[in-house]
Amino acid sequence: MLDWEHIFATRSSRMKASEIRELLKLLEQPDIISFAGGIPDPALFPDEEFKQAYSDIFSGPQVNAALQYSVSEGYKPLRDWLAGEMGKIGIECTAENVFIVSGSQQGLDYLGKLFLSPKDTALVTWPTYLGALSAFNAYEPNYDQLNPGGNRTPATYRDNAAKLGGSVKFAYLSADFSNPTGETVDLEGRKKLLELADELDIAVIEDAAYQSLRYDGEPVPPIMSLDIARSGGIEKTRTIYCGSFSKTLAPGLRVGWIVASTPVIRKLVLMKQAADLHSSTINQLAIEHVASRGFDKQVAKVKAAYSARRDAMLAALEKYMPEGTRWTKPEGGMFIWLTLPEGMDGAALLAKSIATEKVAFVPGRAFYADGSGANTLRISFSCANEAMIEEGMKRLGRLIAAAQVNELTNETIAAI
Amino acid sequence: MLDWEHIFATRSSRMKASEIRELLKLLEQPDIISFAGGIPDPALFPDEEFKQAYSDIFSGPQVNAALQYSVSEGYKPLRDWLAGEMGKIGIECTAENVFIVSGSQQGLDYLGKLFLSPKDTALVTWPTYLGALSAFNAYEPNYDQLNPGGNRTPATYRDNAAKLGGSVKFAYLSADFSNPTGETVDLEGRKKLLELADELDIAVIEDAAYQSLRYDGEPVPPIMSLDIARSGGIEKTRTIYCGSFSKTLAPGLRVGWIVASTPVIRKLVLMKQAADLHSSTINQLAIEHVASRGFDKQVAKVKAAYSARRDAMLAALEKYMPEGTRWTKPEGGMFIWLTLPEGMDGAALLAKSIATEKVAFVPGRAFYADGSGANTLRISFSCANEAMIEEGMKRLGRLIAAAQVNELTNETIAAI
Repeated sequence: MLDWEHIFATRSSRMKASEIRELLKLLEQPDIISFAGGIPDPALFPDEEFKQAYSDIFSGPQVNAALQYSVSEGYKPLRDWLAGEMGKIGIECTAENVFIVSGSQQGLDYLGKLFLSPKDTALVTWPTYLGALSAFNAYEPNYDQLNPGGNRTPATYRDNAAKLGGSVKFAYLSADFSNPTGETVDLEGRKKLLELADELDIAVIEDAAYQSLRYDGEPVPPIMSLDIARSGGIEKTRTIYCGSFSKTLAPGLRVGWIVASTPVIRKLVLMKQAADLHSSTINQLAIEHVASRGFDKQVAKVKAAYSARRDAMLAALEKYMPEGTRWTKPEGGMFIWLTLPEGMDGAALLAKSIATEKVAFVPGRAFYADGSGANTLRISFSCANEAMIEEGMKRLGRLIAAAQVNELTNETIAAI
Repeated sequence: MLDWEHIFATRSSRMKASEIRELLKLLEQPDIISFAGGIPDPALFPDEEFKQAYSDIFSGPQVNAALQYSVSEGYKPLRDWLAGEMGKIGIECTAENVFIVSGSQQGLDYLGKLFLSPKDTALVTWPTYLGALSAFNAYEPNYDQLNPGGNRTPATYRDNAAKLGGSVKFAYLSADFSNPTGETVDLEGRKKLLELADELDIAVIEDAAYQSLRYDGEPVPPIMSLDIARSGGIEKTRTIYCGSFSKTLAPGLRVGWIVASTPVIRKLVLMKQAADLHSSTINQLAIEHVASRGFDKQVAKVKAAYSARRDAMLAALEKYMPEGTRWTKPEGGMFIWLTLPEGMDGAALLAKSIATEKVAFVPGRAFYADGSGANTLRISFSCANEAMIEEGMKRLGRLIAAAQVNELTNETIAAI
């Protein structure tokens, strides 16, 4: 076998197996109750609507166009529809500001490619979406900790980045019911983030993957809408908005979108032309078909189901978690974030769980760019039914309580 | 508006509009006879077969899986089918050696990302596929001229690359009916290329986009099959094979594949996981459905149509081209490559053509990594009917003849 490593690019050393995906393979045993995946519940897919969409495409005049190459910026009627939707949430724009990607994950990859030279710095929250770290890692950046609403001075960010040999290029965050914590950044935090971005002269990447999945509480305006309101129009914004159909319609078609000022969109279009020409034509047509006919109804269906599961999980956590365990109370999305008693390790807990309680979750450390967060874990309620949630939280509570006892015992032993 | 340029990564300066794509926009005027595009004829798409495929998916037990997230390496039944197909052309492999990409263009992007650090050198033919140059450019390489069958010593490649601050990483070529020339590298050339790759210890990227579209002549074994035959198995090869369904089934689904030894495949899977998770699940199922039921029949249909068009174009070239113009005689594919009389410029000729003869083609210079090739041009016969070909070649011949006269006149004037 050849020694490939020495001819791979330096960036390839940062391409590692995602802990979550590797875990998911292990957790396919039938006797495990899993809250590990953050995937949508397939029972909620609008499969009849998609069936109709593909059937109509093949029976209509668009069939040849659907199977042919198409433009890199994306299918115009879909971009028009999206521009209209964006307008409803305060993001006034036209199709010229909308760019179709093969899932919003591709959007993150392209934005890393567009902004990050090796040694540049990306600001991300501690913890953040693991897939964003994976996408950005390919471009060999450093990370610094973003704390929306916090008071760290711009100078400290600038100095840190310079010491590491580059400059700060963007702040990335999921501001609504984020993966992994389920938390939402409040209005004040969003405004302070935009001020920080102004002072650093960087882009803000708003990952809105879960934004339309709010179950209660008051909506907070998207960061991009605040940026438009203060700057006077989308062409003057520094925010780049990443949207996804994966949590509302279906992920298997790989269709997402980016909204930004036209200089950014033009670069992204050139990048896509070189990287994969365009996203699947037929799938863009199918998404436009389904979304334009019943997006709101589908979102309402998904929200009703997930909202009930979130309620059930919060109730079960209250019932079963031992003292010393804290968790978030998300107003939307798919995730709850647990903080274990200090000193406890989420990865060790999962190993124990697979052997004993057979309940699965994702240890939190992978979501931290600095490798901290050992005593955290992510649980998802999106694919769970109430019986699973009840039984699963009971087991998880028992597992944590037992680990606490063991930990104390070990500490006691160590102290002797 | 913000000054975005100063926060874009250095690589973004090499992302420029593709000359071909920009041209295609101009050439959509209805009175132009175009041989510019290299796209498949939509009249040949197996649309009934695809209609059946999507219909079966939505009526069967796979519907939820088709709309859900799936594994980064690709749909296993499709990879199995491809492994079988590869075996038929001397590329013995298993599904573990097959990786699904969103079109073979994405394969080229990923291979650039995997191998090229800034300042490394990629070997490409002069001319080469423009899309390969665009994909690789994002990784800021240098290029050196690959001449399969030529006698340049490995040392000169190594020295050139070192002078430019990197090393040679791979040789990229389309060996069968290449885009843009239509030419095929013979057995001797392929063997010498593998020897050169051995001496340089680099990868060979075999772009097989047109390989199954042979209309006559004897098939030459794929480079990868020669590599397997001499090295004793796919795990010992240095060749990476890129396949496409875009020229045989349909491009709009964005499904292609890569075949390589497992260390390469494993890295590519990690890269895809970080970059876009996976290619469209439903489209992979649809491609597998159509390909496994009638790939050979569809290929035969496409070949019969394109073969007749190639014959018509070669006959018309013979009839109408003025002396001093040369062209290739491809045994397959979609393209013929014209060399104009010395001193004539393909881009200037196109500008004249749009004003006078209204026949469109692609000036050849864009296909040269060094910007040479001004007196060349590419014409495609894939979407042309016989009347178009007859009329188009008549006009093109007249255009070249007139340009020759003008050129002589100008020269004469200059000599006075």
